[in-house]
Amino acid sequence: MVVRIAVAGASGYAGGELLRLLLAHPDVEIGALTAGGNAGTRLGEHQPHLAPLADRVLAESTPEILAGHDAVFLALPHGKSAELAAALGEDTLVIDCGADHRLTDADAWDRWYGGEHAGHWPYGLPELPGARESLVGARRVAVPGCYPTGTSLALFPALAAGLVESDVVITAVTGTSGAGKSLKPHLLGAEVMGSLSAYGVGGSHRHTPEIAQNLTAATGSPVSVSFTPVLAPLPRGILASCSAPLADPATDAATIRQAYEKAYAGEPFVRILPEGQWPTTAQTLGSNLVALQVTVDPDARRLVAVSAIDNLTKGTAGGAVQCMNLALGLPETTGLPTTGVAP
Amino acid sequence: MVVRIAVAGASGYAGGELLRLLLAHPDVEIGALTAGGNAGTRLGEHQPHLAPLADRVLAESTPEILAGHDAVFLALPHGKSAELAAALGEDTLVIDCGADHRLTDADAWDRWYGGEHAGHWPYGLPELPGARESLVGARRVAVPGCYPTGTSLALFPALAAGLVESDVVITAVTGTSGAGKSLKPHLLGAEVMGSLSAYGVGGSHRHTPEIAQNLTAATGSPVSVSFTPVLAPLPRGILASCSAPLADPATDAATIRQAYEKAYAGEPFVRILPEGQWPTTAQTLGSNLVALQVTVDPDARRLVAVSAIDNLTKGTAGGAVQCMNLALGLPETTGLPTTGVAP
Amino acid sequence: MVVRIAVAGASGYAGGELLRLLLAHPDVEIGALTAGGNAGTRLGEHQPHLAPLADRVLAESTPEILAGHDAVFLALPHGKSAELAAALGEDTLVIDCGADHRLTDADAWDRWYGGEHAGHWPYGLPELPGARESLVGARRVAVPGCYPTGTSLALFPALAAGLVESDVVITAVTGTSGAGKSLKPHLLGAEVMGSLSAYGVGGSHRHTPEIAQNLTAATGSPVSVSFTPVLAPLPRGILASCSAPLADPATDAATIRQAYEKAYAGEPFVRILPEGQWPTTAQTLGSNLVALQVTVDPDARRLVAVSAIDNLTKGTAGGAVQCMNLALGLPETTGLPTTGVAP
Amino acid sequence: MVVRIAVAGASGYAGGELLRLLLAHPDVEIGALTAGGNAGTRLGEHQPHLAPLADRVLAESTPEILAGHDAVFLALPHGKSAELAAALGEDTLVIDCGADHRLTDADAWDRWYGGEHAGHWPYGLPELPGARESLVGARRVAVPGCYPTGTSLALFPALAAGLVESDVVITAVTGTSGAGKSLKPHLLGAEVMGSLSAYGVGGSHRHTPEIAQNLTAATGSPVSVSFTPVLAPLPRGILASCSAPLADPATDAATIRQAYEKAYAGEPFVRILPEGQWPTTAQTLGSNLVALQVTVDPDARRLVAVSAIDNLTKGTAGGAVQCMNLALGLPETTGLPTTGVAP
Repeated sequence: MVVRIAVAGASGYAGGELLRLLLAHPDVEIGALTAGGNAGTRLGEHQPHLAPLADRVLAESTPEILAGHDAVFLALPHGKSAELAAALGEDTLVIDCGADHRLTDADAWDRWYGGEHAGHWPYGLPELPGARESLVGARRVAVPGCYPTGTSLALFPALAAGLVESDVVITAVTGTSGAGKSLKPHLLGAEVMGSLSAYGVGGSHRHTPEIAQNLTAATGSPVSVSFTPVLAPLPRGILASCSAPLADPATDAATIRQAYEKAYAGEPFVRILPEGQWPTTAQTLGSNLVALQVTVDPDARRLVAVSAIDNLTKGTAGGAVQCMNLALGLPETTGLPTTGVAP
Repeated sequence: MVVRIAVAGASGYAGGELLRLLLAHPDVEIGALTAGGNAGTRLGEHQPHLAPLADRVLAESTPEILAGHDAVFLALPHGKSAELAAALGEDTLVIDCGADHRLTDADAWDRWYGGEHAGHWPYGLPELPGARESLVGARRVAVPGCYPTGTSLALFPALAAGLVESDVVITAVTGTSGAGKSLKPHLLGAEVMGSLSAYGVGGSHRHTPEIAQNLTAATGSPVSVSFTPVLAPLPRGILASCSAPLADPATDAATIRQAYEKAYAGEPFVRILPEGQWPTTAQTLGSNLVALQVTVDPDARRLVAVSAIDNLTKGTAGGAVQCMNLALGLPETTGLPTTGVAP
Repeated sequence: MVVRIAVAGASGYAGGELLRLLLAHPDVEIGALTAGGNAGTRLGEHQPHLAPLADRVLAESTPEILAGHDAVFLALPHGKSAELAAALGEDTLVIDCGADHRLTDADAWDRWYGGEHAGHWPYGLPELPGARESLVGARRVAVPGCYPTGTSLALFPALAAGLVESDVVITAVTGTSGAGKSLKPHLLGAEVMGSLSAYGVGGSHRHTPEIAQNLTAATGSPVSVSFTPVLAPLPRGILASCSAPLADPATDAATIRQAYEKAYAGEPFVRILPEGQWPTTAQTLGSNLVALQVTVDPDARRLVAVSAIDNLTKGTAGGAVQCMNLALGLPETTGLPTTGVAP
Repeated sequence: MVVRIAVAGASGYAGGELLRLLLAHPDVEIGALTAGGNAGTRLGEHQPHLAPLADRVLAESTPEILAGHDAVFLALPHGKSAELAAALGEDTLVIDCGADHRLTDADAWDRWYGGEHAGHWPYGLPELPGARESLVGARRVAVPGCYPTGTSLALFPALAAGLVESDVVITAVTGTSGAGKSLKPHLLGAEVMGSLSAYGVGGSHRHTPEIAQNLTAATGSPVSVSFTPVLAPLPRGILASCSAPLADPATDAATIRQAYEKAYAGEPFVRILPEGQWPTTAQTLGSNLVALQVTVDPDARRLVAVSAIDNLTKGTAGGAVQCMNLALGLPETTGLPTTGVAP
């Protein structure tokens, strides 16, 4: 089987990571590469690390150019995906790395993103309860946001098992590639290096409703999410520090751990670390792994869960390729690294 | 007035920052510089940035060498301060940057550090209610830990005003100098750069009881503290993301802000940022400033407060010099920068 | 004496560093702060580390607003200084941190920058032979480029003493603030961190003729300069690796060292390190120091000199303040740090 | 064909990178993993990124344990390889990532490393003239040092073609993993981040004679090498800035470029970038690529060549696997990434 793919938004960070993974995927043939403002330029100008594709010239992100592929990956700003997807055939697998089709609730979409909701597609986080089934054979997939990936997986097993109350607090620290190649002063190297900064505080980050949606689905009742993202001086990686009050103050760490081991039994990309070892983002760099550890804070009587992912790999492009594999009936792990690049 | 000072532990990070500040202090004359294993070597080998002192040779940290100064700063591993201090006269101002005399409770000391409690000294965080008064004229000062400085100041005004419940959750991200010059594999540059890692999770970090002690004192009743520290790739800086449930869910951000403005009115080193601007550690680098912002998470009905400090300056050495000024009757701000070094 | 100063370009990196130093200068009163596109905004939005000036609103960079000050610092893109300076009185000290008035040769200006040469002003590197004298009482000063500062000081003593041939090779590694706050993709944090890159290779960097001009002046005959700059992941600092063939292959390191010690005897900001200790940029961070070491490569029979500076301090704003002191008859070292901020 | 391999020194950086690559090699089965002081501990404690091997326990680096494999990789401090190799059969492929068998000259070994020379093995840089032939079928391979890899490949084509004089100047900037996991103060994160430092200046770095040996072999007559390494704040990567005087001052860049294109025609891992594009280390991260660019400095009449490699991949472990492939008759590129991990 040869899967012919196209990537729209190939000059950005998500597009670059998709191509890095797809180049190593044994069943994939790389077709059209398109871009917005960078159309007409060589890919090598923007993604010099993708040496085998350096001389490919970027085309425009039009339906005509994207048509005729088995799978089309959209790595575009939000609001651009629906129209493109509509113009592609229903048989084409369209995997949207943007936000357009993640939220199920049109009102939430309007509040957080503004404008008309493009509708909801199968949600590409196979490790969530019931999600994998909806992805097998799908032809439209909404890839989760990077924060929702790392945080939902850190918290849902405890919530689903009723071990904690539905009131979670999350601080997630991220590298700067999560903001994309945006030319904004606060993303300049001189600003970023040697500094830590909070942003989107007070629940104002757009990933907040997506995290709440995932956790609410896992629990069956509304989960309150207090989410603070922090920008740190590294290119890639999200370390999520997550906590919630224990439902029963007597619950011990072993009980929590068992719930996580059960929830993730057989999951190829979730690694619960040995007791006492805490995740680092470096161990996941460039891989599709989620490194996870949980414990109980004995004084505060809270669960504390910490997850580490690479925001561009499992948090975006790796998750997207995992969904492609599921959608097309390939082994789910094909082409996806389970070792990080460290140090 | 000339204050003749000595620094024990001059080859470490806290000692180096003390000397950087004291070199610029108009009323200070630098006397003995001592060390443990580095005694007998030139200061310039360990602290090349302290050019004016580069040729000073480090002496041993003995009471004889430290005696005869107006103020002695101890920047030593915990457990080393009490004996040295006892050998110095009661008229000598002894400022301990270590942990020995921070906790008021002997049982807490035994649980978190082990062994016999050396006793409690006036706590060197003048911005806490009542603290400044106890420091004026003091001859023994316990400099707070770096995390307790940044987090206590982020939270106490809301707790003291009864605006939030006594159940706080803190994730604080720090640069690696906070761990000192320890030769441990996880502190190597190649490990640190490009990675984020949690440690001391589940309330197991020794600064946890110190934070709880400060917040409990501010409130008058026990405060539960869930504290997770995160190591990030930068030399200096702590960004603390702190939250607590609103006591009255209807409380708005303006009310919170007023409480903080009142609590910090006239404080020379606490800067509440304009609304909408969030702290960065870079803006505090090398300065004695605390940059602070607060808001309300409207969905989670929680206060979210974020503070930024330089862990070596306000978090250690700057706080120590501020205490020296207070103890000796100098203007509190003498010799302490209020501008950061950025970018 | 109170020197009332203005800064044009106050929202950029050079402008910010000027203000950081001038805030700590005991004889300076800060007057107008102006900007280009950022006029009308608060300084605190762009330079949050300059807490005491955070609420100042930036004015437009017009002659009217800049008039009436004792000293005006121009931190503008090249080509903007001449006209502004002409509109300010001849009694006003104008210190140009840009390139407009550095080169003495109009043809060189045209080749490297293009267009008409604005003329040559006294060159603000007092440590060069004869330079200090031209700065005392000057009312126009051209602040050197950052690379020419670090490299000229590393090489001229050997050239002036005839110890090496007039054929130097320089590779200088720099932090990213040297490029200013330019919104270019290759300066984004995610691109910079974890990467090293050469640029302006083959003698094409505009600082090349300025270095050659300085070294030629020191020698009295043309010096060939092969200069390669390298961008590294740090905000500040230049480490220059400089070499030249020994004129007499038998020359030893001690002879070289004596020439440097003689050339820099009494210089307050040049620090020749003890033998065997090599410069680090961290030791100069935020200071006006040049850290320097020299040796002989015994096989290649070349001098190797390495210098470290902070590109924003001694390399730009510190050098500018040093020139202001000289021009206005203040002690040369006033307000200029000689300790770095490390680690 | 299944190649059963062992790695001695599996807990260090070179060992970790070997295992990362070998895990992805389709023809390799991973056998014994050994260590020195870390014997008896889980690999996951030291190399958490190697998730599939995390539970493997490290054995002692004895001949008995290393015996019985098709290929044994030695990633040990220098001086440890000869004895181990002697105890392994002559049929076993032994690939030494250390320095013991790189130098051909016993006097040079004694001068630079001290003690008795262990002898010379086939040198594992297949891109050098004649080197590949000596590696096919070899059973002992000396993997080059990281600096010699990046710099020899940047310079030999011009030297071999007689385009430049035999007098080269090199400044190579490196990430800190090149120093290994040594617990030394100057390698601590807080020291490394935000700083640049030169070391081994004046031709005193042990890689100097190895570079000279390679270039001398390519030219047929002695090449003088002036080499200065610089430590920069990143985990991985070497950017080498190399120059030499043109033999004929009239030589243009196109002639130089042709010589390089000819020298590297068909080389799978050397990528000469399009004109005007300069190498970055990020584009080679985790890959076996050498990114290369050359030009002529028109004023200084020098060749300037810049190369970028990942010091742990092409500079050590990738080069080692490439040699294994050659030695065992596998396709040379098997298991070796040609895309970098960026940003």
